[in-house]
Amino acid sequence: MPATAVTPPEAAAARPISKALYVGPFVHSVSLQDLDICATGAIGVDENGIIAFVERDVQNSDAAAAQLLGAKGGDWPGARVVRIRHAAGFFFPGFIDTHIHASQYPNAGLFGTSTLLDWLTTYTFPAESSLSSLPLAHRVYSRCVARTLSHGTTTAAYYATIHVPATALLARLCLAAGQRAFVGRVCMDAPAPRCPDWYRDADSAAALAATHDAIAAVQALDAGRGLVAPILTPRFAPACERDTLAALGQLLQRSPGLLAQTHVAENAGEIAWVKELFPEAAHYVDVYGRAGLLGPRTVLAHAVHVSAEERAELARTGTKVAHCPASNTALGSGAAGVRRLLDAGVTVGLGTDVSAGASVSVLEAVRHAVWASRHRAIMDAEEVASGASGASKESSGKQNGHTETDSSSCCNGNGNADPDRAKLTHAEALYLATRGGAAVLSLADKVGGFAVGMEWDAQMVGLNALASSPTTTEGEMGGVGDTGDLDIPVDVFGTESLADCVAKWVYGGDERNTLAVWVRGRAVRVRQGVVV
Amino acid sequence: MPATAVTPPEAAAARPISKALYVGPFVHSVSLQDLDICATGAIGVDENGIIAFVERDVQNSDAAAAQLLGAKGGDWPGARVVRIRHAAGFFFPGFIDTHIHASQYPNAGLFGTSTLLDWLTTYTFPAESSLSSLPLAHRVYSRCVARTLSHGTTTAAYYATIHVPATALLARLCLAAGQRAFVGRVCMDAPAPRCPDWYRDADSAAALAATHDAIAAVQALDAGRGLVAPILTPRFAPACERDTLAALGQLLQRSPGLLAQTHVAENAGEIAWVKELFPEAAHYVDVYGRAGLLGPRTVLAHAVHVSAEERAELARTGTKVAHCPASNTALGSGAAGVRRLLDAGVTVGLGTDVSAGASVSVLEAVRHAVWASRHRAIMDAEEVASGASGASKESSGKQNGHTETDSSSCCNGNGNADPDRAKLTHAEALYLATRGGAAVLSLADKVGGFAVGMEWDAQMVGLNALASSPTTTEGEMGGVGDTGDLDIPVDVFGTESLADCVAKWVYGGDERNTLAVWVRGRAVRVRQGVVV
Repeated sequence: MPATAVTPPEAAAARPISKALYVGPFVHSVSLQDLDICATGAIGVDENGIIAFVERDVQNSDAAAAQLLGAKGGDWPGARVVRIRHAAGFFFPGFIDTHIHASQYPNAGLFGTSTLLDWLTTYTFPAESSLSSLPLAHRVYSRCVARTLSHGTTTAAYYATIHVPATALLARLCLAAGQRAFVGRVCMDAPAPRCPDWYRDADSAAALAATHDAIAAVQALDAGRGLVAPILTPRFAPACERDTLAALGQLLQRSPGLLAQTHVAENAGEIAWVKELFPEAAHYVDVYGRAGLLGPRTVLAHAVHVSAEERAELARTGTKVAHCPASNTALGSGAAGVRRLLDAGVTVGLGTDVSAGASVSVLEAVRHAVWASRHRAIMDAEEVASGASGASKESSGKQNGHTETDSSSCCNGNGNADPDRAKLTHAEALYLATRGGAAVLSLADKVGGFAVGMEWDAQMVGLNALASSPTTTEGEMGGVGDTGDLDIPVDVFGTESLADCVAKWVYGGDERNTLAVWVRGRAVRVRQGVVV
Repeated sequence: MPATAVTPPEAAAARPISKALYVGPFVHSVSLQDLDICATGAIGVDENGIIAFVERDVQNSDAAAAQLLGAKGGDWPGARVVRIRHAAGFFFPGFIDTHIHASQYPNAGLFGTSTLLDWLTTYTFPAESSLSSLPLAHRVYSRCVARTLSHGTTTAAYYATIHVPATALLARLCLAAGQRAFVGRVCMDAPAPRCPDWYRDADSAAALAATHDAIAAVQALDAGRGLVAPILTPRFAPACERDTLAALGQLLQRSPGLLAQTHVAENAGEIAWVKELFPEAAHYVDVYGRAGLLGPRTVLAHAVHVSAEERAELARTGTKVAHCPASNTALGSGAAGVRRLLDAGVTVGLGTDVSAGASVSVLEAVRHAVWASRHRAIMDAEEVASGASGASKESSGKQNGHTETDSSSCCNGNGNADPDRAKLTHAEALYLATRGGAAVLSLADKVGGFAVGMEWDAQMVGLNALASSPTTTEGEMGGVGDTGDLDIPVDVFGTESLADCVAKWVYGGDERNTLAVWVRGRAVRVRQGVVV
């Protein structure tokens, strides 16, 4: 099997850790709407990376930490203490990227004015095809994993390519770096023009064999650590033969714990194509339903243009959605009706969708989720102003062979149109990036928040707290003023609340503010000069 | 006069410079559509900061530079040589921010889900009001100027506050830092509820006196250098009495070289309010027309919701537009029809509109211009699909007392609807950020591009060129791979063209890629370790 070419991981995932106490402000989502913002926190994490206790009234000092550990007894007094030392800093859950094509990382920013289908042939297939070369795959994947980790992504659901050895290599690099990951070999066996003849699985049998090989290789590398797992990855309906989709569906149904990921309803041309290729299906979501690919272990990316009926089917089956707003904006796919999905009971997380999304940063995806929701609200307002009702638009959309006029989240069939409802707050977008993503990847009980029994997948965030200078005199105003520390983004002037700091981080922060990153209690990325 | 409290600038703007030769790739806009990408450039800049020659076929070496300078004769052989030493680097014109509220800088990222009018009262007026304190103004403005410069903004059109001393302080800080700037004292004299009683000019006479004082103070500080200039700054129509607007218009008309800036047609509520306050005006643009405030020296921010008639009036009078896409998205104002403005013959530049825009980065505004244009195209496509015509929507919009349904750029009255026309390329957005902005601020002959006779307002851009490793062996793949240099964004793998590098910079770059910044030939910002 080709994966044997890959040496076993000298894994960050396997480094032993000791008990630790994380002291300082922490922030995490407790519901879609609500951030829990605790200025005086202390979180104890055991030697398995599991949160043992969460205290809410501890001073940020070595003395207070020692006192708390003493009170905990056992071997807690010997625990390592990691304190927030920034004036404007806090612990936050690690980000969860529910949809990223690691193989497309070198193409980030290259898309011109293309839309989905020409983007695939112009930019994407050539880039993915080149990763048949393992040295090139090593360059691309190692860089992509290092970058995502530096941006605070503690869990990622990766698409690799059709190549088994390179897919296994990506899994190995995740283990070596200590990142929690789902790694999927892309399955695409439909003949040209559905897939290029120079980049596809030869036939259904070859596609299924390679799928099994990739699953076995990734599982062998993880070796029971439970950090890196395979994930079934049919590219999208147009790229797969009907029988292949059904075989993958059967594999999914008979493999407890195995996840699946693919794309749905991203743009109008794609939707029309699917309707043509799968005339027997009631709608795009039903293509996967007929193949047995829906369910709580399946992640569908995009869902920009889904009907009320499709939303209901996603909710009924428990199928999850990866919202990829940066990608949807860049390729002009649309502004997904996230509120409508949530209102229908669908579980939603965020994806960067590199390289259609240009950034590996989930924080950037959080911003894009907010921004796309503003455009969704603007469109909803225009629809309300022009008198369109959701119900009538939905039916007319389907008669036209596509459903893109049904992406409004305002007109949900009860006549109570409120365009502003489409707007996501930054707290809601942060929820999607953490708890939401965890639920999408069947990890809701493990990561995405801070609670006893959950694992310490976290980042230490630090902003740029400016020295206060209330006594500045006119004489001191002779120079150019405070020009120091321009290398750390997000200036905090001292009048901001901790909640304000979170908002400023969301809209102005980047990976420089992510001072350290932990996965299951292990420090997997620490910025120079930061003590953990 | 209060401005005397400000000490004279120990100005970067006054530092002497010597002749210099800038060797290496350069990139700049030569038309709206076209970037001139020269891989083998050399640009000579004289001791006044003026470009003396542009060569296009010079090797990037000290020997080639010396040979070229020798051939130029005179005292050119003694010129300083500044070479691009990055494998993926180039010179690019400095950015021009045509609309930024320096006074709101501490609020960057704080806006919640507000829209324009509640945003003003909740976030903005309190922040601006606090800058009656000069020490606080010094903290805020020094930081804002340092940040904008570090992001490559060589020219900015600033809004300050109503306070004359703080406005003069901002001008002094620009001079001290060496940044080209227009600095405007905000004029707002309408009584509550149009302006808060705790933050406004007492009456029209006070507003005009303060306006004159601020102009005199800024001109005195600049002392003929021509680097920092005053700019008339009525906040926006609702904040100013009719007579005050007219007096400002008269001042503008009788002051050759003086510029003016204000806001127009940003959101629906504002537009309805203006219609109510100024019933005599044909439309929002006409409010300023009646006051004598239109013309080639006037910059109107936003113009998100302008009718064909208003666009024609802007074009006829030569009035300029500052497009602020990040702000328009954040506040849910809309997606401006930039293509329609350009097609109508209106001159357009980019503004960050801090703090409604959360970032001082014009590069971020470039991205937002592209993204907003995608949403404009999506909305245009939905309008086309629903059978709306531009002409009919315009008239219905106006009958409803607002014009937001007229922001489509597709249906321009000739029946040839092409939603994709709304899309801006990254090259077009870069044009708006450089040449466009220069034209907006009446600087088209001086800055925004590289040509003989223009001034050297420029930035050195460097990306993160990864070491090529074509010979990577399987043994070398044992570790975590290339994790170096994570602190410089935009990975370049070596297969990219220089044009690709520009695109990757646009979508993935930040101020870390701006290695050095020059204004009129003076280095005003140089990153540590960079030799200029």
